[in-house]
Amino acid sequence: MMKIHTLSVVGVGLLGGSIALAARLRHVAQRIVGVDRNPAVRERALRNGLLDEAPPDLAGAAGGDVVVFCTPVDCIAEQVLALAPLCRPGVLLTDVGSTKAHIVAALEGRLPAGVHFVGSHPLAGSEKHGAEHARADLLDGRLVVVTPAASTDGGALARAGEFWRALGGRVESMDPGEHDRALALTSHLPHLVASALAGVLPAEWQHLTATGFRDTTRLAAGNPGLWTAILCANQAAVLEALDRLGGQLERFRQALAGGERERLEGLLRQGKQVRDGLAGR
Amino acid sequence: MMKIHTLSVVGVGLLGGSIALAARLRHVAQRIVGVDRNPAVRERALRNGLLDEAPPDLAGAAGGDVVVFCTPVDCIAEQVLALAPLCRPGVLLTDVGSTKAHIVAALEGRLPAGVHFVGSHPLAGSEKHGAEHARADLLDGRLVVVTPAASTDGGALARAGEFWRALGGRVESMDPGEHDRALALTSHLPHLVASALAGVLPAEWQHLTATGFRDTTRLAAGNPGLWTAILCANQAAVLEALDRLGGQLERFRQALAGGERERLEGLLRQGKQVRDGLAGR
Repeated sequence: MMKIHTLSVVGVGLLGGSIALAARLRHVAQRIVGVDRNPAVRERALRNGLLDEAPPDLAGAAGGDVVVFCTPVDCIAEQVLALAPLCRPGVLLTDVGSTKAHIVAALEGRLPAGVHFVGSHPLAGSEKHGAEHARADLLDGRLVVVTPAASTDGGALARAGEFWRALGGRVESMDPGEHDRALALTSHLPHLVASALAGVLPAEWQHLTATGFRDTTRLAAGNPGLWTAILCANQAAVLEALDRLGGQLERFRQALAGGERERLEGLLRQGKQVRDGLAGR
Repeated sequence: MMKIHTLSVVGVGLLGGSIALAARLRHVAQRIVGVDRNPAVRERALRNGLLDEAPPDLAGAAGGDVVVFCTPVDCIAEQVLALAPLCRPGVLLTDVGSTKAHIVAALEGRLPAGVHFVGSHPLAGSEKHGAEHARADLLDGRLVVVTPAASTDGGALARAGEFWRALGGRVESMDPGEHDRALALTSHLPHLVASALAGVLPAEWQHLTATGFRDTTRLAAGNPGLWTAILCANQAAVLEALDRLGGQLERFRQALAGGERERLEGLLRQGKQVRDGLAGR
């Protein structure tokens, strides 16, 4: 298993906190540094032993052998570019952003010699946020997609895979653009739909919701600022996914409006077949 | 608390089984009769003590002081009309159908003297089905909507309320049409959307789903036949709910396509506000 001296986490929220906690409990790093702008977050993380050091500024992460950026997707590339010149050669920079192509493209060919970035996306999360919800097992058995670019160093890619496996993840490599098209459908569209569905519920009918509505709209409780950044960063693919869903909703509408019971049941059966086939129901 | 001699349940699935179980454990009925066409269901329910008697035919339910129809929404009115002449005066007939206006209208003025029907809808369920998933606490604290028609007997309405409260439910009375419009949005539309979302997921991306996609599409695992009947029974209201969602999705699409971040964040905030306001998250 991978052992490193210092792990730096930039952004100590749900994911950053969970990564620090997993690294601590699995003895992946001897020392864990967490950068966060929020003094309350830093104080709590030092007090409860989650972090060994909690500097307020990005530069404080420079000593890490591995640095994981757990900040909003529209900040990551900029922060990587700012930190990279301060890091020592051999450092591995990675992230947890839900969108990859724009980050990978923004960094391509722009890092100092010996400083490597490998885009990553652990498919784990929650509508909750903040390090107070961090869980040591958040990555346990979860898929972590790594998204090398054409020029990505093979050694750095292998280390990124080792790092995520050491924290409990399963690792798969994908092209950044393919990742973004897939996640538009598997993650970004569900978020948008959950939000739209919750948004059209009139106040006077809220007490008539049961577990079905609540499960279907759970994602709508997520952070609007973070999700605006994700949707905008993956604009084209999300619009395509939205069109695809629109087409299916239109097929449902036509079948229902026309009283075509068999066609309607066929559409419901199609959805059930896919849903029943998903692991970990 | 209400005490009756004989409770009859027509259709021993998840809801019928849970009603029988709750009635048994809360001593609401001395004797519980369950009608089901499936011999395996009848045998198991007799063997494990869920039912005292398990006749295969509807007529077997005629001895109940309270008869609850837990059959598909497109069968209920017809079965009530068939059973009513066999029942003794003073019987309370009720149901658990997810749609109410068409059932209530079909029975209005068509029952023998002394035989009363009160439409009911317990907002409890699961994508699972079958009495093997029955739970004594399925109705615990859940809202049960009762939907009297203009001519509904006041005493029968009061008894229906007592019955559901005796099983652990909270009871609210609504106009059947208003119930159907509300449930189109809080239950039927989420089902349709979950199914559409699951239905457009390509096989090669299924392994890239995480808890978000799974929660949002959980309802898609429901029984396609039962849900075809529900959607068709509430056609107009579901189409209206679908239009309402379509309008909101179009607002999302425009904001995203135009790169209007503030508008997009406002839409996400609107959804979050509603979702955060729902009890029992």
